[in-house]
Formats: sequence, C-alpha cells, structure tokens
Amino acid sequence: MTTAATSRIERTLTRDLPRFEGQTVKLQGFLHARRDLGGVQFLVLRDVSGVAQCVGAGLDLPLPESSIEVVGRVKAHAKAPGGFEVQVESLRVLSPAVEPPPVEIPKMEWNVNPETLLDYRVVTVRGLRERAALKVQAELVAAFRDHLTQEGFTEISTPKIVSAGAEGGANLFPIDYFGQPAYLAQSPQLYKQIMVGVFERVFEVAPVYRAEEHATSRHLNEYLSLDVEMGFIESEEDVMDLETRVLAAIMARLRERTQSELALFGAELPEVSTHIPRITLLEARRLVTEKYGHAVGGKDLDPEAERLLSQHYAETEGTDFVFVTKYPRAARPFYTHADHRPDGSLNPDITRGFDLLFRGIEITSGGQRIHEYAMLQDSIAEYKLNPDSLAGYTEVFKYGMPPHGGFAIGAERLTAKLLGISNVRYARAFPRDRHRLTP
Amino acid sequence: MTTAATSRIERTLTRDLPRFEGQTVKLQGFLHARRDLGGVQFLVLRDVSGVAQCVGAGLDLPLPESSIEVVGRVKAHAKAPGGFEVQVESLRVLSPAVEPPPVEIPKMEWNVNPETLLDYRVVTVRGLRERAALKVQAELVAAFRDHLTQEGFTEISTPKIVSAGAEGGANLFPIDYFGQPAYLAQSPQLYKQIMVGVFERVFEVAPVYRAEEHATSRHLNEYLSLDVEMGFIESEEDVMDLETRVLAAIMARLRERTQSELALFGAELPEVSTHIPRITLLEARRLVTEKYGHAVGGKDLDPEAERLLSQHYAETEGTDFVFVTKYPRAARPFYTHADHRPDGSLNPDITRGFDLLFRGIEITSGGQRIHEYAMLQDSIAEYKLNPDSLAGYTEVFKYGMPPHGGFAIGAERLTAKLLGISNVRYARAFPRDRHRLTP
Repeated sequence: MTTAATSRIERTLTRDLPRFEGQTVKLQGFLHARRDLGGVQFLVLRDVSGVAQCVGAGLDLPLPESSIEVVGRVKAHAKAPGGFEVQVESLRVLSPAVEPPPVEIPKMEWNVNPETLLDYRVVTVRGLRERAALKVQAELVAAFRDHLTQEGFTEISTPKIVSAGAEGGANLFPIDYFGQPAYLAQSPQLYKQIMVGVFERVFEVAPVYRAEEHATSRHLNEYLSLDVEMGFIESEEDVMDLETRVLAAIMARLRERTQSELALFGAELPEVSTHIPRITLLEARRLVTEKYGHAVGGKDLDPEAERLLSQHYAETEGTDFVFVTKYPRAARPFYTHADHRPDGSLNPDITRGFDLLFRGIEITSGGQRIHEYAMLQDSIAEYKLNPDSLAGYTEVFKYGMPPHGGFAIGAERLTAKLLGISNVRYARAFPRDRHRLTP
Repeated sequence: MTTAATSRIERTLTRDLPRFEGQTVKLQGFLHARRDLGGVQFLVLRDVSGVAQCVGAGLDLPLPESSIEVVGRVKAHAKAPGGFEVQVESLRVLSPAVEPPPVEIPKMEWNVNPETLLDYRVVTVRGLRERAALKVQAELVAAFRDHLTQEGFTEISTPKIVSAGAEGGANLFPIDYFGQPAYLAQSPQLYKQIMVGVFERVFEVAPVYRAEEHATSRHLNEYLSLDVEMGFIESEEDVMDLETRVLAAIMARLRERTQSELALFGAELPEVSTHIPRITLLEARRLVTEKYGHAVGGKDLDPEAERLLSQHYAETEGTDFVFVTKYPRAARPFYTHADHRPDGSLNPDITRGFDLLFRGIEITSGGQRIHEYAMLQDSIAEYKLNPDSLAGYTEVFKYGMPPHGGFAIGAERLTAKLLGISNVRYARAFPRDRHRLTP
C-alpha cells in the first residue's frame, strides 16, 4: 500500500480496535516491544490509549521506542492484549530511535539505580507506571479545579518572584532580579489572601519552591501546589468542610477516569464520606501516647505519630483521612487566627490551624487566617518578626479583609500516597531535589 | 435582630436579590460606597456577584472597603442597581478598614499615576475593571484547558528551575540553586516536547520568565503561558487547525460567561470562523509594502507591519486573526522544522514556524519542531550553538520522537488585547517588570 493511500485513512487509537474488526486501520505510536520468530515479526505498538499487538512478515523493525505507523487489518485474537491483533500490511518508521532505551520501557519494574532512572528521565518517563502516575495527577488536578469552579471559586495566577517569604526568611531560593535581591515564592499565601478581597473565593494551581537542604521521600524542592482561599467564613470548620467536598470530587473523578492506571499500581481509592473525623492536636497526641505507647516529641505530631493516628482512624472508623485541628500557636505561622473560647474570647495559645492526614502522612495545612489589621500587628510583635519586612503583607489588612481561611494540597504528595509510590520524586515529571537540576 | 438569629439565615448573593422580594436576606461583602442624607444612610454593598443598594437609619457606617454583613428586607426600587434595594435591619462590621483606600474603588477611571496604582495594587486590584479583566482571564484559561482536554490532551507540570535556556542563553533570570547556577525557565519548550513521547498531546498553564531589560506595553517579565504540544502531526497546518479550534472555544466561553465584564470594557469578541486566513511571511511583507507603502525592516514583521497586516484582513475578510506562516530560518530558533518543497525535499531556508496576529499584535508563536536526532544535530551546528550545552535537550530525540508541533499563547497579552487594555501589566494581578518586585 502506498504512503499516499495510507495517509488518507484516519488514525485509529489502539483502544478502539474492537470497533474495527475485519477492517483496515492505521495506527500510530511507539514501538513498545518487538520479536522476530524466523521471518514472522511480532511487534507491540503503544499509543496514548494503550497497546496493540501487530504481526507481519519481512518487516524491517527499527529500535524500540521508534515512532511508527502501522496499516493493517484487525483480527480477533484471544491471546492478544485487548483480544485483537493487527495483521500488518505496511509499516512506516516516522522517526527512528538511534539508541536503544537504557531500560526496557514495557517492564513494570526496572532493577536500576533510581538516580540513573532520573538521569534518563526523558525516556524513562515513558514507562507505564510513570505515565499512569502523571495521568492520575492530571485528573486529580482537573477535579480540584472543576469542583472549586462549581462552588463559585475563581482561578488566580500570582507571582512566583517575590521580594520576601510569606513564612519568614528560611528555605528561600535567591534570584538575581535585575540586580535586586528576590526569591522564589514558597507559597501564594499572601497573594491568595489579597485576592479574597477581589473574588471572595479563589484557587491557584502553580509551582512553589522550598530550598530545603535535606532529602526525604516526602519533600520536593519544586512542587505543584493546589491552593485555596475563601472569604466570609465563620471559622476553619467551613474550610475543612470545603476540603472534604474537594477530596470527594477528586476521588469520584479518579474512580471514573483512571481505573486502568489505578489497577497498574494495585491502588485502592479511599472512601471520602461526607464527614472526615476531626481531632484536636492535644487529643491526638494523648491518643497516640495512650493507645500505642508512642511518646510524641515536639509541638506537632512526628511522622510516627501521624502514622499511628491514621492507623487508629482506619481501624476504628474505616477512614483514611483525619483532620488534626486547633494547633498550638507555637506550631503555626504568625498569620494564623487564634481560636475562640466557649465564652467567645480569644485564646492566644490555640489557633484555628489544621492539618489533614491521609494514610499516615500530612497532605494539607490549612486554617483560618487573621483578618484584622490590629490583631495581625500584635501577632507580628509577639512572633518577634520585623513589621517593616512584612509591610507588603500587612498593607491589605488596612482595607477590611473579611474573615477567611484556606488550605493547600501538594499534588505530588497526594498522588504518591494514593498510588503507593514510595518517593514523591516519582510523582513529578522532572523532579528537582538537592542535587538534581536536570533533565 | 440578634447576631445569633441573623447567623442562622443563609447568605444571599446580590445578584439573587430579585428572587427574594419581600423577604429578609443576609448579604455579605465590602462597603463599596456610602452616603449620609441627614440621618438616612445609603450604602452600596459589593460582593463577587455584583452590588446592592441598601438603605437604613441611624447606622454607624465604617470606612469604605470594610467587610460588612447586612440583614434586611428586599424591596423593588426602580432606581436601585438591579431594580431592588435592601432595607437594613441590622449592619454588622465583619472587619473594619482602618484607612480609606487610596482611590475610590467604585470609579471606573482613576486619575492617578499608573505606578502609584500598582504600588497600591493590593487594594486597587479590587477595582471593577481590574476584577473584570482577571475574571475574563480566568474564563479564557479554563476554556483553553477544557477544550484541549476534550481533544484528548493531558495536562503536564514541568520545571521552572532549569540548568539552561531552551532558546539559548539570553534573557534568563539567574537562581542560586544550592550553590549551583540555575535559571528560571523562559518556556516549557523542551519539556512539553519530551512529554509528547509520553502522552502524545499535552498542555501546560504555568508562569514563564523573560529577563528583558526594556519596558514595553506588551511585555511582562513573568507571565502566564498557555502551552500546547501535539505529536503525530502531518505538518504545522495541524497545529494551526488546533489553535483555531482552541480560540473558537475560548470566545464561545467568554461570550457565554463574561458578558458583564466585556460590557465594562466596551469590548467586542472577535469572530473565530472555522478557518483563520494564512499568509506566508514573504507574502505578508510584500502585501504591507505594496498596499500601505510600509517598508518592513528586519527579517520578521515589525510592529507597524503587524498592525497593517491585521488591518488588511479586517478590511478584506472581516477577521481579527491571521496566521503568518513559513518564517525564514534566520527568524526562528534552531529546533524549528524546515519546510518541504513541492517535490518533498527539505528547504533549508524556510521553516514550518508561524505566528498568529490578533488585532495588530502577535499573540502566538508556533510551528512544527525537528523530531529527528540527526537533523537536530545539524541544525545546532548550523546555528553555531554548543551541542554540549544542549545535550539535555537533544537526548530525548535519540528515542524516536514522533513528528510534532505546538504553540504558546500569553494569557495576559490575549486578555489585554481582547479588552482593549493598553498595557499588559493591567491584565496580571501582580505584574513584575524591570523595577517592580512588589506587591
């Protein structure tokens, strides 16, 4: 068959083969795998929708990962993936690989040093698990946005080049901004709060930067932050209610659209009921100590305490999520709103900040923020911060900011935890860590 | 009425007042405007959905922009905005402004130095035009994403911290990355191409960075780039077809959802027919010279030529868009695919790169990219670039990249041009320019 004739056929995706039984189709994709059995060639073509087994004779097969076009007839074949096979009439190499890939892309596990896999990420990212993880993340992000849009939130885009850090001065990457010192934003915290004054309810999906020196399996130096801020709330309870609905929407979409990706990881989606249990930090520390004999250090929960608290809720309530609420002031940033006592007075020692744990790990920090100018100035003084360096932050609070709060989810961490990926670096296409700037 | 009683009423948005005639509602928002007429107070409450006129007696009104809650009865009133007024039963100040805003937020024009307006952006961004522009942009971005998702594109998130610039070394912001030199990404060019090897069709919405020294009304140093890349194309014609469909989807959504915002600017949406005219760069230069007597300098179109070419198409075909195609090699980056001559051979002097003009200004660059490793190496040599510094870029082309191409739209520039905003800085919430790092 000539090129002119084949190009007239529309491309068929491999997942649609069953609809074309007995017909001639044109497939385009990557040469996923190949085998030569004495003059008869088997090849597997991979496209975005899946794979198709093709069989032909006298074919001159290029290296794996070459881009190819196959024209052939679709035939039922019980042993082929998906139950159909394509009998090759013509094979065209659209773009040949000039080197074999460093690993066999079709394999589910590669026994290679993880750093080497990341060195070759430009091609190892084609791996089935890699692709599936990034696909799940794309759907997760889309569900986040769609749900918030439905609830009247407006998307914003805020600067990642900033003159100071919202959380203070630590862990910032310095930039040379035309000779002025500047930094990469650690979070859109200030800006999303400002935008509550414009749209009341806002969200942003954008990268954020943490210059943390230590390498862990749960931190990235650049990650995709799913940020939310809402105005005219009564308390942080409204924010937790919202996050519960957002998570339910995410799981519903993943259930609907990523079954095959989830299956590849043997991942089970959590149930998000209409209510996620809430426990104060103090109660949580006591529970972990009393039930599991774990003495919790510091002012927060340590990683082991997070794990045990999640275990408790999985065992007793069958849920993978728990909100840990009412963090002490010492464990939260200066802009966190104080809690109210039952008599309505403010309790300076306890905040309306919360974390959300999922399967033993914190995936969100959130809370109600201080909205009154005078209270914010007092807090800055109590934290012994420099009011001048925070003037850009406090300015907007002169202009009647409503009571507001919000939260942020790290997209890669949630993806990794959902799929059981042990290191968050593999839930990002091109991770940046302490030593890695490429690819 | 007590606070306990009012808090039991659900909040009503101002746009929904007509549905509550005769009933008591609770509004929450900002004190947009206020007037005291001898014991009777008129106030305008602004929320995300619009404004409501409220009238009461003996009210103690706070400064404008304070966050307030009004409980009162809805009454038809022909002269009130929207035809309804709220008779205030109680007014609660949720959060008082402690200073009057530097400009009157309700005014459509502020006679203030534009730099001063940007200095006070934390509150001037609440202005009606400011809010409308950012709302239009949010819908524009959502339409971009939704349409591409429908066409089977997958969203990606790629690094903004890179070790080298995709376009060469100029106009990069340096970062200190744990002591290693690094830069802010000028575009996701390389990474979106790599991801074509994974998902075939990808898009990204993320900030990009250009360290351009000169201040113009059409450039930002940080802007939101709407990036697309698609594999298995025949030529750049497929990419232009796609962009035409994307633009049609954007205009359809803006028409549906942003009528009041467009009206505020007196903006008329362009028609995007199923075909946008295409003219080669050489023909475009000739046309502008012959029809308008404008001698075009350089190798590209200069701004005046862009304006005149758009004028020609508006006059002759009634369209606000035109693709300028087949750029000479000297005017395009090294990765641009050469054009084919009618006999199928490659023409080294002409590329498959294109620009899209909209109402006299370029809003897109796009084209087909080189996908073969050897051709890319040749191009790097011809451009006298250092192959070692581009090794991270060329690596993926060893592994059978399919024929592919894409484009990018600057969200702020398109927003500004759609709304007739003369400086692109006002189409971004918190713009960064040569001297501006705050707010």
